[in-house]
Amino acid sequence: MPETGAIAFRDIPVTADFDAVGRLVRATGFFSDAEAAIAEELVAERLEKGAASDYDFLFAEAAGGLRGYACYGPVPGSVHSFDLYWIVVDPAEQGRGLGRALLAAAEQRIARRGGRRIYADTSSRPQYEPTRRFYEACGYRQEAFLTDFYAPSDGKIIFGKHLG
Amino acid sequence: MPETGAIAFRDIPVTADFDAVGRLVRATGFFSDAEAAIAEELVAERLEKGAASDYDFLFAEAAGGLRGYACYGPVPGSVHSFDLYWIVVDPAEQGRGLGRALLAAAEQRIARRGGRRIYADTSSRPQYEPTRRFYEACGYRQEAFLTDFYAPSDGKIIFGKHLG
Repeated sequence: MPETGAIAFRDIPVTADFDAVGRLVRATGFFSDAEAAIAEELVAERLEKGAASDYDFLFAEAAGGLRGYACYGPVPGSVHSFDLYWIVVDPAEQGRGLGRALLAAAEQRIARRGGRRIYADTSSRPQYEPTRRFYEACGYRQEAFLTDFYAPSDGKIIFGKHLG
Repeated sequence: MPETGAIAFRDIPVTADFDAVGRLVRATGFFSDAEAAIAEELVAERLEKGAASDYDFLFAEAAGGLRGYACYGPVPGSVHSFDLYWIVVDPAEQGRGLGRALLAAAEQRIARRGGRRIYADTSSRPQYEPTRRFYEACGYRQEAFLTDFYAPSDGKIIFGKHLG
């Protein structure tokens, strides 16, 4: 069992997050190598561009290291919509509410910046059933379903939540 | 009246396209300065990254210069979906079928690359009614409507078309 001490949230990425995010995303066994590479790429872009990047992060850390993270950002061209790009929790930490806590903390940050809507894209594949239930439990509702968007029988479901 | 000689299509962007696209987009009177800047930015990114960019272009030219263009590209994470990012026609050239010809030519290129689905995001604002009618006339149908996505009373409509 990993250490389960107090978990702290941190917004500002540091260089070590690139490797930590890659390890965490791969440790879930949920994402493809290509998806893990995209997750790393977003950290790299944020490290390179700083706050000018459209990718914001929230890292959940315990003594043993990174336990989960969320990546979100303002939708270009929208005055008040944000996209949730990634939310990942260490398998050893799942089922303890860390995902909900991360999402709630990201929503607070978005609301403080004037955000009114949050969107999260997910796949319609059976593998994503727990993901869909997670969003619904967190107050998101399905706003669109684009059949076969990612691949045959792999549609895109857009979940949305209204803030405030 | 501008010259209306034969119009030729060209795929490979050249440096002069950056200014020409900016002028064309602004000449329509349809887009905001911020939107025009994004249009230019996509040309710049393509010029910088070449074919490694996710933005592909199709330029429609006559003797007098650029008459219209389309910008499209593969959706990251999808095996067969493409996004249509921009399609713009010189105001003096509108109503003559150039938009349809540009879109049909872009669709052919997408189909040759294995693309099966094309998506175009539009606004629900009244200003975009002609745009929405254009997509419908070209075989696209509304697949999603995200209310207030861009701003209050400015929703996002996602049009989609299945190829082949």
